[in-house]
Amino acid sequence: MPSFEEVRAAFPVLEQYAYLNAGTNGPLPRVVAEAMIAEQLVDVAQGRGGEPYFSRALGMRDEVRAKLAALFAVEPTQVSLTRSTTDGCNIVLAGLDLGPDDEVVTTDVEHFGLIGPLHASGARVVTVPEDAILDAVTERTRLIAISHVSWVTGNSLDPARIKADSRLPVLVDGAQSAGVIPVEAGAVDYYAVSCQKWLCGPDVTGALVVARPDDLPVALPSYFAQSEHQPDGSYVPREGAERFDSGWIGTPSLAGLSAALDVAPEWRFERVAEMAAKCRAALGEQFEVLTKPDQAGLVTFRPTSDPTELVEKLRGEGVIVRELPGRNLIRVSCGYWTSDEDLERLLGGLA
Amino acid sequence: MPSFEEVRAAFPVLEQYAYLNAGTNGPLPRVVAEAMIAEQLVDVAQGRGGEPYFSRALGMRDEVRAKLAALFAVEPTQVSLTRSTTDGCNIVLAGLDLGPDDEVVTTDVEHFGLIGPLHASGARVVTVPEDAILDAVTERTRLIAISHVSWVTGNSLDPARIKADSRLPVLVDGAQSAGVIPVEAGAVDYYAVSCQKWLCGPDVTGALVVARPDDLPVALPSYFAQSEHQPDGSYVPREGAERFDSGWIGTPSLAGLSAALDVAPEWRFERVAEMAAKCRAALGEQFEVLTKPDQAGLVTFRPTSDPTELVEKLRGEGVIVRELPGRNLIRVSCGYWTSDEDLERLLGGLA
Repeated sequence: MPSFEEVRAAFPVLEQYAYLNAGTNGPLPRVVAEAMIAEQLVDVAQGRGGEPYFSRALGMRDEVRAKLAALFAVEPTQVSLTRSTTDGCNIVLAGLDLGPDDEVVTTDVEHFGLIGPLHASGARVVTVPEDAILDAVTERTRLIAISHVSWVTGNSLDPARIKADSRLPVLVDGAQSAGVIPVEAGAVDYYAVSCQKWLCGPDVTGALVVARPDDLPVALPSYFAQSEHQPDGSYVPREGAERFDSGWIGTPSLAGLSAALDVAPEWRFERVAEMAAKCRAALGEQFEVLTKPDQAGLVTFRPTSDPTELVEKLRGEGVIVRELPGRNLIRVSCGYWTSDEDLERLLGGLA
Repeated sequence: MPSFEEVRAAFPVLEQYAYLNAGTNGPLPRVVAEAMIAEQLVDVAQGRGGEPYFSRALGMRDEVRAKLAALFAVEPTQVSLTRSTTDGCNIVLAGLDLGPDDEVVTTDVEHFGLIGPLHASGARVVTVPEDAILDAVTERTRLIAISHVSWVTGNSLDPARIKADSRLPVLVDGAQSAGVIPVEAGAVDYYAVSCQKWLCGPDVTGALVVARPDDLPVALPSYFAQSEHQPDGSYVPREGAERFDSGWIGTPSLAGLSAALDVAPEWRFERVAEMAAKCRAALGEQFEVLTKPDQAGLVTFRPTSDPTELVEKLRGEGVIVRELPGRNLIRVSCGYWTSDEDLERLLGGLA
């Protein structure tokens, strides 16, 4: 089992920065960049055409799908390859075809990547505090749509329990949980994630787990929706969740994502929990912390001075965190790669 | 003005292959790969976070949008940045919200990237031959959806004339026209393109021109749909077609696409026409050619032996073309970079 120092050394950005913003984009492992660059050199010299190119790219899709399935404790046939969490949410909402007589229950601390698609669905969107979801269910509720871990508060919900208690379809925004805490995505109906955050993959990569692919219509078909089709667009859908795939992915991105999914050590979740707890305790000595104990990798606090200026000051000192705009909050992302020194640099900058 | 030899030397794949498959994926210019790799090295060392990273990425979006607008003779506010032609078609069809009482007229030689979304729209899809579009219009017709250049036949239609004659909303699949022939995208309502084909850009890049952005609802919102939003997902849309943007694009892809859009010489369209004419004439001496004279960059012919085996034999000889599966056809893509020698190698392999 690799040591912490060995794992940390995989991330060049950490040599210079206390990079504490995986909630937006994860640090890129060296092997991910190397894999992408190697494939780009192949593409530029060999071209992106011919049967071997396509066979190989399709094989890489299978490989990535299998790794994501293992990570989320589902079958590969339940995993769709998307471009983002937002993408996954749009695929689900467009497929559900809700209308103005339908209600969707969500919380008041969701990202636009979830609530934007909810609003576009045409359903009535009912927003409630994180602890009031079940109370908001009515006979018109067609979907519960929540983050596993809120991008604002850093607090986590228990999607499996909400599913069991409500017996309703549940869509989970897993942007801040995938790679951070153990996820059993098949416990709910739809679980959408991004791969460029805590999974440290290339830009514009994501996945959507659909527990029962045959039950969701394909509303946004790409070429991967069909195994054969007619001139009017009617078609035989592919087996499983591949039918929801968002479209082509280049071999550089596939190679990078595949490499990224191999980087994390077995102790990833324990280390995140340990570092987030340290971060929370230290910030709590000086600031109001919104994140409850024992959540995930995000720790959100309320600074006592202007958050924009403070984030900028920290950046000047090599500490990368983010402001949550309009909320007077700053968010710190603790990964399995985060060191005690990273947190000391943060606290030093806040002193 | 650069010479043909200078322009051709920009594409490393052409040193080895007669690469005649830009209709699937274009040859990658060296400067595109270099721009992408340079940005990946920045990302891995500097991280993908902090205000300067985001400001720069947003500036690169503006730059790419402006270059695409100039290419398609529209305003930047009419250009949305997407991931593919399919993506653009899904954005339009989901926004139009058609139903079973609505009819869409299309041709019988369209790509699944258009007809898949048409089928998913729920409208009745009326497929007719390329020359019978206007005859198929009824009072129920809500949209005409066609390729500017068919991926099968290589034949082109005149979208502006079809728009003028029908006075109906027109959606154009420009996958085989963008970068090949002059395009005035604003002459129709919706013009969807891919950037990784004839524009020689990175994988998973595309654009959607929306002539009147305020008239199309945003059905698949990404973060770029809104300038400000409420907890229930309701929002103030951004100005112009940016509201339809598919989501984040990494700086490597943006830098690569920006570089790609600068590569083509002024004589691009004349050269494509000249080489396609030469290709068509030479193939016509031995084979049935489906493509009419004076179309675009694709030339499709019917081989006299098994097309799969023939494409494979050609590949073994360094000639990259593609079969159109199930149609007993082979398609040759002639770009502005195509040389007489490329065509001689093709004809030699077919002899």
